[in-house]
Amino acid sequence: MRWIFVNNNFAEEAKALLQTNDLAIQRGYAVFDYFRTVNNQPLFLNDYLDRFFNSAKELSITIPHTAQEIKEIIHQLIKKNDTPQSGIRMIATGGYSPDSYTPVQGNFILEQQPLLLPDAEKFEKGIRIMSYSYQRDLPAVKSINYLMGIWLQKQLKEKGLDDVIYFQGSCISEFPRANIFMITPDGTLATPARNILAGITRKKILEFAGETLPVQVRDISLTELKQAAEVFTTSTTRRILPVTEIDGIPIGNGKAGPLTRQLLEQFIRQQESFNESAYTVLENR
Amino acid sequence: MRWIFVNNNFAEEAKALLQTNDLAIQRGYAVFDYFRTVNNQPLFLNDYLDRFFNSAKELSITIPHTAQEIKEIIHQLIKKNDTPQSGIRMIATGGYSPDSYTPVQGNFILEQQPLLLPDAEKFEKGIRIMSYSYQRDLPAVKSINYLMGIWLQKQLKEKGLDDVIYFQGSCISEFPRANIFMITPDGTLATPARNILAGITRKKILEFAGETLPVQVRDISLTELKQAAEVFTTSTTRRILPVTEIDGIPIGNGKAGPLTRQLLEQFIRQQESFNESAYTVLENR
Repeated sequence: MRWIFVNNNFAEEAKALLQTNDLAIQRGYAVFDYFRTVNNQPLFLNDYLDRFFNSAKELSITIPHTAQEIKEIIHQLIKKNDTPQSGIRMIATGGYSPDSYTPVQGNFILEQQPLLLPDAEKFEKGIRIMSYSYQRDLPAVKSINYLMGIWLQKQLKEKGLDDVIYFQGSCISEFPRANIFMITPDGTLATPARNILAGITRKKILEFAGETLPVQVRDISLTELKQAAEVFTTSTTRRILPVTEIDGIPIGNGKAGPLTRQLLEQFIRQQESFNESAYTVLENR
Repeated sequence: MRWIFVNNNFAEEAKALLQTNDLAIQRGYAVFDYFRTVNNQPLFLNDYLDRFFNSAKELSITIPHTAQEIKEIIHQLIKKNDTPQSGIRMIATGGYSPDSYTPVQGNFILEQQPLLLPDAEKFEKGIRIMSYSYQRDLPAVKSINYLMGIWLQKQLKEKGLDDVIYFQGSCISEFPRANIFMITPDGTLATPARNILAGITRKKILEFAGETLPVQVRDISLTELKQAAEVFTTSTTRRILPVTEIDGIPIGNGKAGPLTRQLLEQFIRQQESFNESAYTVLENR
């Protein structure tokens, strides 16, 4: 059984319920965040909690627990579910709003699912993507608004592609659920500075990449992206995953690039050193 | 007690529930529609049902009932709640999605609340609005995505304003929950043609306004809007309501205009002739 925490209680999935007058159901109004556990230990939890509370503040959503209380509930959830490699989602909604429009005391949900990271084969192959002109609303806020991302899934399936990079005007920004990086032809690591959600994986990479590479956080055009030596995407569920094709154009030699691999190795060694199994993706290559 | 219909059952509010893994809660992914009852009779129901099913189709959401079944359920709901002047909301969500991203069999909600239309005093005073640069995603679809509309409520409250008109580039489009019309200085009725939700009230006005006024459905700039003789907003809950100030600039003489009043009288006489109480707003002036 998989336990879900709703407001003040643990419940099984079929009994983890919200009233239909919640602002998430009425108006898609809620914030969330999502982190990994490695061997039952949350990874970068303080970063994720900070972002979660910041998102809620920006949307005037009241989270009915303190960060410390949520940490304690996470601890209990991990113990109850015993799913060592997992993703944990925290959601805070706009609450049971009498006028179906104004946020009130929020409802809080905590849920956990097994999570399989991309394996060595997936890493080598990378993902094939298309570009799409779009800018997410309030990009710095991790809201539950994925209308465009989910709507685009149909096009992606029809084209046999894995994901979509948003751009607006001449600037690329991000994937619906992930950040983007490129290695320029002269070996510089670059990632967009603006109109994005500040990913935690992105943040960690920016913290250590400067040890081995020149790093730029700046505007990147779609044209420049397609001429990059290497491109990769980062997220909690992907870690670092190569992008091998954009709008039908192969990136580099169309396979995972050497600096992308080096950054993944650094990420794993530095950030998950307590976790033996994390090395599988490296050893299997 | 107020009855709510969820999937296959009528339930009271506290027992009208969805599981937290519904795509509305996970990703804000759902469509809805909202119509009025007048003396327990649904107004323009076929128009609203058509739009509801079209929205669902565009978002690959499966409504678990036919239009005919929904009509029957609406009939039962009206009977059970006996709230003659009401608003009825229908919601169809992305369903209990195993991957929290892909729409599956949708969940269906039908709910009813008492609805008070603007009275004569509110009509005479009109509403004061500001403009904001924004374009709704997939504007022709009535999705539950109101992230920007609700987020902007804080600014509106601080400024003591009633609503916000979206524009992008040089074109105005719509309010978060309503359409816009203007009367030009030469007495032409005009309303934006593109990037809007096609409101049912808007549609009805366009059907009869040509009897007395020249009508244009075309692009309108924010500058032109502010120089209009009269401006008004239309929606299911507002019917026709004057806009008397935009970004601090009074429209016309800053009060309800004569052609706006004439259109409301036409709307009520033509569309709600079976409803005696509808005349209150006219008689009280």
